[in-house]
Amino acid sequence: MLAGAERGSRLGKDEFKEVVPALRVDLLNAQFDLTGADFPVMVFIAGDDRLAGSEVVKRLHEWMDARHIDTSVFGDRRPEEEGRPALWRLWRAMPARGRMAICVGGLMRQIAARLDGRIDDADIDAWTGHLEAFQTELLTDGGLVVKIFLHTPADEQRARLESGGDGASTWRVDARDWEMLDTNAEARPYVERFLRRTSAPGAPWTVVEATDPRHRDVTVARAILDALTGRLAGPPPEVPSAPVEMFTSRPGETTALAGVDLSARMSRGDYRTRLEKLQRRLHGLSLEAREAGLPTVLAFEGWDAAGKGGVVRRCTAALEVGDYRVVPVAAPTVEELRYHYLWRFWRALPRPGETVIFDRSWYGRVLVERVEGLASAAEWQRGYDEINDFEAQLVESGCLVQKFWLHISREEQLARFEAREETPYKKYKITDEDYRNRDRWEEYDGAVDQMVLRTSTDAVPWHLVSAEDKQHARVEVLDILTSGLKRALKG
Amino acid sequence: MLAGAERGSRLGKDEFKEVVPALRVDLLNAQFDLTGADFPVMVFIAGDDRLAGSEVVKRLHEWMDARHIDTSVFGDRRPEEEGRPALWRLWRAMPARGRMAICVGGLMRQIAARLDGRIDDADIDAWTGHLEAFQTELLTDGGLVVKIFLHTPADEQRARLESGGDGASTWRVDARDWEMLDTNAEARPYVERFLRRTSAPGAPWTVVEATDPRHRDVTVARAILDALTGRLAGPPPEVPSAPVEMFTSRPGETTALAGVDLSARMSRGDYRTRLEKLQRRLHGLSLEAREAGLPTVLAFEGWDAAGKGGVVRRCTAALEVGDYRVVPVAAPTVEELRYHYLWRFWRALPRPGETVIFDRSWYGRVLVERVEGLASAAEWQRGYDEINDFEAQLVESGCLVQKFWLHISREEQLARFEAREETPYKKYKITDEDYRNRDRWEEYDGAVDQMVLRTSTDAVPWHLVSAEDKQHARVEVLDILTSGLKRALKG
Repeated sequence: MLAGAERGSRLGKDEFKEVVPALRVDLLNAQFDLTGADFPVMVFIAGDDRLAGSEVVKRLHEWMDARHIDTSVFGDRRPEEEGRPALWRLWRAMPARGRMAICVGGLMRQIAARLDGRIDDADIDAWTGHLEAFQTELLTDGGLVVKIFLHTPADEQRARLESGGDGASTWRVDARDWEMLDTNAEARPYVERFLRRTSAPGAPWTVVEATDPRHRDVTVARAILDALTGRLAGPPPEVPSAPVEMFTSRPGETTALAGVDLSARMSRGDYRTRLEKLQRRLHGLSLEAREAGLPTVLAFEGWDAAGKGGVVRRCTAALEVGDYRVVPVAAPTVEELRYHYLWRFWRALPRPGETVIFDRSWYGRVLVERVEGLASAAEWQRGYDEINDFEAQLVESGCLVQKFWLHISREEQLARFEAREETPYKKYKITDEDYRNRDRWEEYDGAVDQMVLRTSTDAVPWHLVSAEDKQHARVEVLDILTSGLKRALKG
Repeated sequence: MLAGAERGSRLGKDEFKEVVPALRVDLLNAQFDLTGADFPVMVFIAGDDRLAGSEVVKRLHEWMDARHIDTSVFGDRRPEEEGRPALWRLWRAMPARGRMAICVGGLMRQIAARLDGRIDDADIDAWTGHLEAFQTELLTDGGLVVKIFLHTPADEQRARLESGGDGASTWRVDARDWEMLDTNAEARPYVERFLRRTSAPGAPWTVVEATDPRHRDVTVARAILDALTGRLAGPPPEVPSAPVEMFTSRPGETTALAGVDLSARMSRGDYRTRLEKLQRRLHGLSLEAREAGLPTVLAFEGWDAAGKGGVVRRCTAALEVGDYRVVPVAAPTVEELRYHYLWRFWRALPRPGETVIFDRSWYGRVLVERVEGLASAAEWQRGYDEINDFEAQLVESGCLVQKFWLHISREEQLARFEAREETPYKKYKITDEDYRNRDRWEEYDGAVDQMVLRTSTDAVPWHLVSAEDKQHARVEVLDILTSGLKRALKG
C-alpha cells in the first residue's frame, strides 16, 4: 500500500494559494454542520514521518476551528495509563456525537516495541484485533472514521535529513529522525500488514505521500472534508455485521437460571462467623492488591430486590475508603447518551490497586435495553461480542474481573417489594417500573440465559448466585471474590 | 476545639433504631431537592481517627443515594497529580451545581508531613491560605460547604486498639493506627490552629466525637442534613467580602495601555531572521522543559483582531505536537456554567513538561464579563484576588506562567476587520459582536488598566505587547517566552 503512494506528488505554490481559501471555507462549513449532527468523528493520523504528522496537525488546527477539535497525541504511556488496557486512552479520546477528535501516533511506537523485542507478534496481533473491534464499534454506532497514513519514501527522508531539514524546519531535525529512518525499513512489512488488516468498509486507510508539505496538507484536509461532507449528506454506509446465531430458549427448555438451587440457606450463626472470616480475609487481600497494584472490576447484576446493594455493602465493609469505588449504573445521562454505550464504563475503570464495583453494568445492553426495546436487535446482538472484547482487554491488562447474577424466585421478589413498602426509606428504591419489569420475567429469564451462554468466558465466567437467602448470597459472593483475589495475587 | 467535643457522647441502640429511618427519608428527600437546586455541596470529612472516617463515608453511602454523591479520598498524591498545584485535586472533586461531593482526608497527611519535617510552617501556612481562598470562592459562588472533623479522644483510641478493635472490626486495626495514635498528640496543636483559621461564616467546622459509632454516624448525617435543608430553604448567608478599593481611571489620566508604543515596527528581513532564531531556541528549550518536567501556562488577551491567533501559531510552530495544547476560551458552555468560573481553567492545567496556551483566559472575568455586565460587580471585583491566588498556586507548584496583552489602536482594529471581510474564510472569525465591542473601547481600556494594576505580580507580570505591527508582536512574545523558559529551567 505504501509503494502505491510513492509517486512524487507535489503541489505548486500558486495552485496551493488558489485552492486553500475555498478549502478552508468548506472545512469550516462542514465543522459547523457537524456541531448539529448526531455522530462523532475520529480522525486517525499515523505515519513513518515524525515531522509530517506534527505539521499536518498544526495545519488542521489553523485551517479549521480548533475549538471544535479534540486532539490527542499517543506518545509514551502516561502515568495514569499504567495498569489500564492499551485502548483506554482511545476511549478517553473518543469524541461526543457532533464533535471531532484527531488522534495522532501510536502505531509506529507499537511496531518499534515489536522490533525491539519488547512485545511479540501475538501481542501485536491481539492489539490489532482490539483496534479492529474498536473501529467496528465506532462505525456500527454511527461514527465516522477517517484514517490517514503519512508516508515519505525513505530516500526522500534521507535526502531531507542530510540537507539538514527543509528550510525553516532545519532545527527540528534531531537524532530521533535518523533512528526512525533506520527502523522504517524494518517496520514496513508490519505497517503493510496493519494497514491491510485494519482497512474496513467505511474505514479505509488513505495513504498520503508526505514529501511535499503543500500536497500533503491539502490532500489530508480534502480527505477529511470529503469524508465529513459525504457523511453529513447521507446516512452512514451499511456496516456488514456478522450474522449472530441466537440461542433462543424454547418453552420447556431449562434456562441457566433454572439450574440455580434456590433452596440454599445459611443460619444466622454460620453467617456471622463466615462473614467475619471472609471480610477479614478480603481486607488482608485488598491491602496486598493495593501493594501489588492489582486492579479489580466487579459487576453485579440480578433481579430487582435480589439484594445487590446488601452484597456490595458487605464487600465494601472489608475495604478501605479510597481503595474502592461503587458505580451505580442507571439509565444513561444526557451526556452519556452522546457517546458509545461502553464509554461510561471505560471511563470508570480502576487504577492499579483499586476495586471498582458496578451495581448493574454494561450487561444492561443485553438485558434491560434488549427486553424493553431500548436497543435495536442489531445493537444488542453485537453487544455480546463487544462485551467479550471489553472484558478480554481488561483481563489482558492484568485486571481481575468477576461478574455475578443474584438470582431469586418471582415469589420472593414480590415478598421483598411488599416488605420494602413497609420501611419508609426503602420506598425510594421502588418505582412502578419494578412492577412492570415483573411482567416480563420470562423475557428477562431468556435474555439472562443467552447472556450467560454467550459471555461466560474461561477468564470471566458468570457466577449465578442463589440469593433467595440473603445471608447465603453474601457469603457465597465474598467466598468467590476472595478466592479470585488470592489466585490473581499469586499468578 | 477538640477538647470541647470530648464528652463521651453515646447513642443507645434503641434510640438509634428509632431515629435512623426518619433520618434516611429526610436525607433522601434533601438529596432529591438538591438535584433541582442551583448550588453545589461540598462535604469535607477530616479527623484523627482513620477507621471512623472510613466508616462514616460508608454509612453516608448507605443512608443516602450514592448515585448522587461524588466521593473523593485524598490519600497520597496520585501519579497524575505530580507537578500540579496541591489544590488541583480539590478542583477536580468540585461538584456541579445541584450535586454533592464528599472529600475525605488530606489534613492529617499534611500535618504528618510537617511533623516529619518534609514541609515547614510556611508551607502549611501557604497551603491553609489557599484552602481559605478556595472555601471563600465556593461560598461566594453560592456553594454550600459542610466541614466535619471526627475526633476520638486519645485514651479511647488506645483502649480500642489494645482491645484489638471493637468487635466486628478487630481485623481492621493495624500498625498504621498505632502510628497515628502517636502522632495525634503532636499533631493536635496544628489541628487546632487549622480548624480555627479555616472556620468561616457560612463554613464552620463541626467537631464530632467519634468514639461511639451510632452517635458519630447520626451526628454527621444530621449536620449534613441540617446544612442542606437550611440552604434549600433560603438564600445563602451573606458572605462578608472585603471592600475592594477600585482603581477608577479618571478621564485624562493615562491608562496602562496608553503607555504602549504603537509605533514599534519590524522589517520583513529582520522578522524572518529573528523569528527563525527564536523558534529554534524555543524548540530546544521545549525539549529541555519536557526532560525537566517543567509545565508552562501561557495566557493571551488582547483586542479583537490584535493577532492572538497568529502569535499562538508562531509559538506552537516551534513546539512538538503532544508537548502543547491550545485552549481557545469562548463563552462558557452549558456544562461549564454549572461550575465555578475558574473550574474550566483548573481542568486544563498542563502536566509536567507540557505547555498549555490559553487563547483568551480567566481574565475574561474582569474584562468582557465586567464590561458586558455578565458578572455582577461583587463577582468581578473579587475576581482580581481569586485570579492572583490561582496564579500564585501555579507558580508555587513550579509552573512557568506568562500572560500577554496584545495592544493595537482602534483604527488598526477597524482596518483589520475590513481586511478580514475580504478573505472569505476569515469571515468566520468576525461577528457583529466584534463591532459592538468596539463601541465600548474606553470601558475596556479602563478594565484593562485595572486588571494590569491589580494582577501584575512579581512572579507573573503583565506583558503589554505592541501589536500594531504583527511581526513585531510575534517576535516580542517569542523573545519574552524564551527568556522566561530559560530562567525557569535554570532556577
